[in-house]
Order: sequence, then structure tokens, then C-alpha cells
Amino acid sequence: MRLVDARETTVSIASNMHNAAISFARMTVSVAALVTDEVRNGRRIIGYGFNSNGRYAQGGILRERLIPRILESPAESLLDPDSGVLDPLRIWDAAMRDEKPGGHGERAVAMAVVDMAAWDLAAKLAGLPLHVLLAERFPNAVRADSAMVYAAGGYYSDGGVEAVQRELLDYTDMGYRAVKIKVGGEPLDDDIRRIEAVRNVLPDDVTLAVDANARLDLDRALDYAERLEPYGLAWFEEPCGPLDYAGFTRLAASYEPPLATGENLLSADDFRNLLRYGGLRSERDILQPDPGLCYGLTEFLRILDLLQEHGWSPQQVCLHGGHQLSLALTAAFGLGPCESYPGLFAPIGGFADGFPIEGGRIGLPDVPGIGLELKGSLVPVLKALAV
Amino acid sequence: MRLVDARETTVSIASNMHNAAISFARMTVSVAALVTDEVRNGRRIIGYGFNSNGRYAQGGILRERLIPRILESPAESLLDPDSGVLDPLRIWDAAMRDEKPGGHGERAVAMAVVDMAAWDLAAKLAGLPLHVLLAERFPNAVRADSAMVYAAGGYYSDGGVEAVQRELLDYTDMGYRAVKIKVGGEPLDDDIRRIEAVRNVLPDDVTLAVDANARLDLDRALDYAERLEPYGLAWFEEPCGPLDYAGFTRLAASYEPPLATGENLLSADDFRNLLRYGGLRSERDILQPDPGLCYGLTEFLRILDLLQEHGWSPQQVCLHGGHQLSLALTAAFGLGPCESYPGLFAPIGGFADGFPIEGGRIGLPDVPGIGLELKGSLVPVLKALAV
Repeated sequence: MRLVDARETTVSIASNMHNAAISFARMTVSVAALVTDEVRNGRRIIGYGFNSNGRYAQGGILRERLIPRILESPAESLLDPDSGVLDPLRIWDAAMRDEKPGGHGERAVAMAVVDMAAWDLAAKLAGLPLHVLLAERFPNAVRADSAMVYAAGGYYSDGGVEAVQRELLDYTDMGYRAVKIKVGGEPLDDDIRRIEAVRNVLPDDVTLAVDANARLDLDRALDYAERLEPYGLAWFEEPCGPLDYAGFTRLAASYEPPLATGENLLSADDFRNLLRYGGLRSERDILQPDPGLCYGLTEFLRILDLLQEHGWSPQQVCLHGGHQLSLALTAAFGLGPCESYPGLFAPIGGFADGFPIEGGRIGLPDVPGIGLELKGSLVPVLKALAV
Repeated sequence: MRLVDARETTVSIASNMHNAAISFARMTVSVAALVTDEVRNGRRIIGYGFNSNGRYAQGGILRERLIPRILESPAESLLDPDSGVLDPLRIWDAAMRDEKPGGHGERAVAMAVVDMAAWDLAAKLAGLPLHVLLAERFPNAVRADSAMVYAAGGYYSDGGVEAVQRELLDYTDMGYRAVKIKVGGEPLDDDIRRIEAVRNVLPDDVTLAVDANARLDLDRALDYAERLEPYGLAWFEEPCGPLDYAGFTRLAASYEPPLATGENLLSADDFRNLLRYGGLRSERDILQPDPGLCYGLTEFLRILDLLQEHGWSPQQVCLHGGHQLSLALTAAFGLGPCESYPGLFAPIGGFADGFPIEGGRIGLPDVPGIGLELKGSLVPVLKALAV
């Protein structure tokens, strides 16, 4: 068994929305395929991966560094010596050869693309859905065929408060029991009116979180925290810069409800520092890594180990990304609700077609791999890479 | 005055050496040109920049994100409103539009390329050498036409200890009074023998530093620290991971001579955390940012502000990079000795041709800009971009 090719392409996920920090008008992602010489039932086994929204495609790093290193590695060096099967951990090590420590940015995003493809491949080669493979392979994982999700929306657009109200009611109609909207992109008073308007139309048992996308300075974040506190929000996300551990410490000392952060920490190194220095509260606050941005599932396993060392429950993790990899990890490792962006970031955003949300949960498909082929909008992209 | 084009190319700086962490067999860098509509003495004014060694070329990010944003910005938005001249700080802001916070990796390297070109341009437009422009523009800068340098070498290669001895004596013959070699790539006893052998041939007044390139785990770093302490080295560089602030704190508590780190911290955010949490000693330890890797001179000015806030003298900064931008900053801001890699990393490594080192100092050229055109090996690359 060996890899015979690795391919990548760039796909637009442009939209006219924006959060407090950036516009998505030119957003792109990379999609990659790891092609094996293995043919089963007349079909070649190929693993697919992509990166999450927000940090652009990484074609340069994939083509110039990660993919050549994998394809030039001796075939047997990528195999698990016990099983003789291609091993995602060995593919990870091969791709990251001759990379300096630190500087966790676009490289982490590119590696996440390759790593997702490697785990999709591993699950297909095992003939198991990824979430089941994880349950079999890791003692801290369990077999679960559905997972909690929450709907992240409420971006700033031209529709005003009424459009956000309608949007969130659509989510509750779809079956979501937890929703999130943006803050920090308008004056504080306007943002509070937005929260009031949304809270007024949401059913009482639907929880609301808010996300400032790291746009506020610390003084403004403290002003927001004071005004937000009475609403008992599910969490206040990215109130300050992702690397401003002292800022989090200050906020956690005065804001009682949960804080959340993590989508802009792209490595276990950075999560270790957040846990060491961020002053966050393990029984309450929320960590939001994205395995589609921070070096993949393989690095996420290292982050899970860190959480255990620091006394955090996996339930305090709500994965960013809104894709099937985050959903599989949420199910297998018993994490908190997985982020979902209903209708956004096509074709990479969203889960397998035909799985309704019921009581805030969604089912996972029972097919080998991550199940990316069950997402209709993604199929043409995958097919183009398979040729 | 406006930018009419921005171009970039990838240049190989491959060599057969390696440090404790990576091989340089496939190392590349990006070189970029910012082309204006300004013609003086029949020559078009063009600013040039490149990134430092170690983190590869960044053509993808330059072509897909940074350069389009600059070229599509309204021409007047890039001008200083008082002088009407193209302003590096405005070019920086334009290039970084729609970039999420955190994740300081390859983007920082790509931005450093553009920012170097923008400052080269600003100095050419002012008709001044960059180090003189800085002295005129910033109150904490001074006019100085030479700067201290040190020779970084002693990479692992096939030549053994004798080759390293010869190499370092070449440096002292060239006029260097401070040298550095690699450690951490061989067993500790062998590395100590290497240091002994080098110390035995170096004149007593030439200082020696060592660099472990973040390859050691903390236990091994502590073992090294214990064995290195009697040698009274100028510094022990990257004894542990660049983001392992607790590791630095532990080392600083037991190792008396100076520690050094910084080339793998690619942003002011990361330097702030090092200063907050790294336990380093402001009167003794050495910080080594690289303006050719961490978002450029523009971000380095932010790092300088942080140093002042935290009570560090600019003399504790020894810039990484071994290129003319680091040298200009060293001269203008009164920093500690600038890193130099004699004969390595051509065509980007090294300073202007024809300036000998005397007593550990080297002169800076008196031409408008950074003086990149005075480095013969670089001229063909710049000419190709100018066409």
C-alpha cells in the first residue's frame, strides 16, 4: 500500500458578510486529495481534506513544502509497522520535516488540510466512519453516532436587526437549541439593542452566545463585559486578542458568565500558554480549537492531552469550523456543542446531507471515512481532484 | 506619486548544512519589488525586499493576499497626507486588511518582504540611506554609520571539529570579535568537546555564544545549561521551544550567564508574552527578533515600544537575519551586535560589498535606500524584478 499522488486546489467561499474583524468577500480554502494505489470494489481509495474558513487557501505551502515531502518519503516510512496501513501520524511527521519551531500560522492551516485527508484515508482503509475509528483507536474516545451542535450566525450585513431575528428563528425551526451572534462591529449600545432584539424572539430554552472576534481592546472588552453580564449568555467569545493572556485573566476576574476563545490559536504550544497564563476557569470557560486550522486532528489529540493535564473536561471544548471533521471529533471525544454555520461557507461548511437536527443534536453518517462524499455541494470539488 | 506594480519571485538559498532542528537543503526566500511611477535621473524608483532564511519563500501569500490588496487600494490611501509620499505604515495596513488576529506564521514572513520593500522605497524617495531616514524620523533613533556585528556559524556538517575551528578563525581574521556555533545536534559530551576545541583556538578577547535552535526538551536544556555555565558564554540561544515561557523561566532561575531567544517569535504579540511570562532578565538576557521574518521594520517598531514598557535597553537586542535591514536597524536604534552569517545564505545573506569588518564593526553604505543594490550577488535578482 502506498500513496501515488497528492493533489490540491483552491476553492472560493466568498460571501458578502463580515464580522468585527474581517470581510469574507475574498475568502478561499484549500482542498486536497491523498491518492493511494489501493482499489476496492473497483474504486481507488482517496482521502480528502480541506481547511476551515477564515484563514484563506494555502496552495503555496502545500505545493512547495508539505506535499513534496510526503510524496518523496520512502513508502514504508508512512506505514504503521504493525498493520502495514498508511498512518496519519507518520504522514504528519513527514510533511513537517525541516520546519522550524514556533511561527504557528498558515503552515498550521496547510497541515490541517493534509491531516484531514490522512485521517479520511485511514478511516476508509479501515472501512469505518472516522468517529468509529477514533472510538476504536483511542481509549479516551467513545462510540457515539450523534453530537450536539450550535448555530453560529448573526454576522453584520445590510439587513439590520430584523434580518438577524429572522435568521435565528430559522435556526430554532431547524432544530438548534443554541445560537450565537456577532458583537463588536457596532457601537456598544447598538450591539446591546441587537442582543435584546434577538433574546426577545428566541424561545426561553434556547441559549445565546456572542462573539467579538478579538476586535475589542481591553478597556472596551471590559465595558462590553459589564453590559453583557446581566444577559447570562452561554459565552462571550474572543473578547480580546487571542494571544492577550493577561487580558483574559483580567476579564475572568470580573466577568462571571463563561468566556470563550481558541479559533485563532493554531497550535498545542499556544493552547498550553492559554491554559498556563489565561486565567480561564476550567469548570466554566469554553475552548474552541479548530482541527481544520491548527495542524489537524493529530495536533488536536495533543491539545486534548494538555486539557487533561490542566484538569479541563472535554465538555468545555466547543470546536470551531462547522465541518464534518469537527463533528466527528465532537462525537468521539464527548466534546461540548460543535459550531455550525447553517447555509454558510459552502461547499466546505456544514455536515452530511439529509441529517436533520433534533433537539440540538445531529447524526453522523455510517460510511467509511469522514463522510465528505455525502455533502452534495462538495462532491464536484472532490471529483475534480480524483481525476 | 503612486505604486504601479508589485512583483515577487522565489530564490533558492539551498545549502548542505543543518542545525539541530532542520536541514537547509531546500531553503528558499521570496524577493519582492514595489514599483512606483516616480522617475529620477532617468531611473524609476523601486523598493526591494526579501525575507530572512529559515522559513521559506511566501509566494502564495504575496500573490494571493498581500500584493492584490496593496495594488487595489486607492492611490492616495497609501500616501502620507502631510508629505504626499508613499508611507510604509499605510502600505502595511493595506496589505493586512481582512487578516484575522493571531496565527503569526508565514503571513508575518510575507509581510516582512513587502514591508522591507516599502521602507527601501521610503528611503529612496527621501534620498537618504534607510538608517539615516530612521534617525530623522524617530526620536529614539540616532545617526550612526557603522554597527557591531557577530559571526554566526559552526553549523553541523561533515568536516568535524577541525572544520569548525578553521571556520571560526576565518571569522576572527575577517575582523569579527564575537562568534557563535550550533549545539544540540549531537550528544552533550560531543557538543562540549566542540566548544572546548573552539574555545582553545579562539583569541581570549573573542566572545563565544552557542545556539541550540529550540531542539532540546527542558530536561536536556537544563543538563546543557549546567555543563555550559563554566564557559561563561556570551549567551545560550534557544535552549527550549520559542513559546515555552515556563521553560525559559525555569532556565533563567538556574543558569547564571545570558540566555537568548526570539527568531521564532514572529510578532509583537508573541514578544509581549515572552516579556510577560518568560522570566528573562532585562539587564542580561538577549532578545533576537528578525525584521525579515516578523512583519517587518514596522512591527519591529512596536516590539521596541514593548521593550521600553518592560524596562529593557535596546542594547539587549541582537537582531537575527544577517542582512542589511537588520544592520540598518542595529545602527539607528543602538542595538546590540547584529547577526552575520559570513558567506552563507547568498544572495540575501550579508551586507553591502566592500565594507570590511574592523574591531567587530561594519560600515553602512551612504546611498538612498537600504543599499541592496550594493550587494553584487543580489543585483541580478533585483534587475530581473525591475524589468
